[in-house]
Amino acid sequence: MTAADFVLDPRLKAGSFFICDWDLCRVSLKNDKTFPWLVLVPQRRDIREIFELAEADQMQLTREISRAARALKTVCSADKINIAAYGNMVPQLHIHVFARFQGDPAWPKPVWAVHRDEISYTDSERETEIEKFKNCFGKLES
Amino acid sequence: MTAADFVLDPRLKAGSFFICDWDLCRVSLKNDKTFPWLVLVPQRRDIREIFELAEADQMQLTREISRAARALKTVCSADKINIAAYGNMVPQLHIHVFARFQGDPAWPKPVWAVHRDEISYTDSERETEIEKFKNCFGKLES
Repeated sequence: MTAADFVLDPRLKAGSFFICDWDLCRVSLKNDKTFPWLVLVPQRRDIREIFELAEADQMQLTREISRAARALKTVCSADKINIAAYGNMVPQLHIHVFARFQGDPAWPKPVWAVHRDEISYTDSERETEIEKFKNCFGKLES
Repeated sequence: MTAADFVLDPRLKAGSFFICDWDLCRVSLKNDKTFPWLVLVPQRRDIREIFELAEADQMQLTREISRAARALKTVCSADKINIAAYGNMVPQLHIHVFARFQGDPAWPKPVWAVHRDEISYTDSERETEIEKFKNCFGKLES
């Protein structure tokens, strides 16, 4: 199949904003400004676990996770990058890559260990954030 | 450096049991029988983020995460494999790869979202569990 056959799960789409498509993954910004947070979704159909991807896709996924992590480190001066793939509720394989800071609302625990309400970006904040990531991705790819 | 220079962080060592060393990672069983849970630690020094690994090591890490995930799926008939890399408290890069089941104590939430006490293996349970994984790893490698 090609990326053209790919359909992003509507639950993932609803909570995030499109940034760009890489060779394998669709890259989105999660709509929660508490944590700078990217969601990577391999543009392949019917994949739920990383080991269901073809080996070349697994390798590309790793390159793209690393690129996302490096961008978060660079753009946000993050103290730590956290990476997680669950998919217990939304089966389409998706990887959370997000920035953590000493003193953030859940630090040093996993963000899921602390209940909090998500805080949406305003339109202009969202545009600014997306632009920052696009610029950084461009530099990391060159 | 070589794997011989590698020292497992004592906090990771304290909460888990050695299973085996793969080409890159030390593979341990977390001492919590609520969830079949493997911890993979790349045997490299002073690595905190995945993108700090050499590219070849990143690719190998992905192969080993996939192998661990496939083993959990096979050995435990897991409904879903969850994968996470945090490192906010223990900086040595380590990856959690663990099995989830419909109806487990945290399902479908991330395990960190539900407070629970860890339940240690007895000696014989631990030996049985480690043996099961070793047997499965052997088959996946051949």
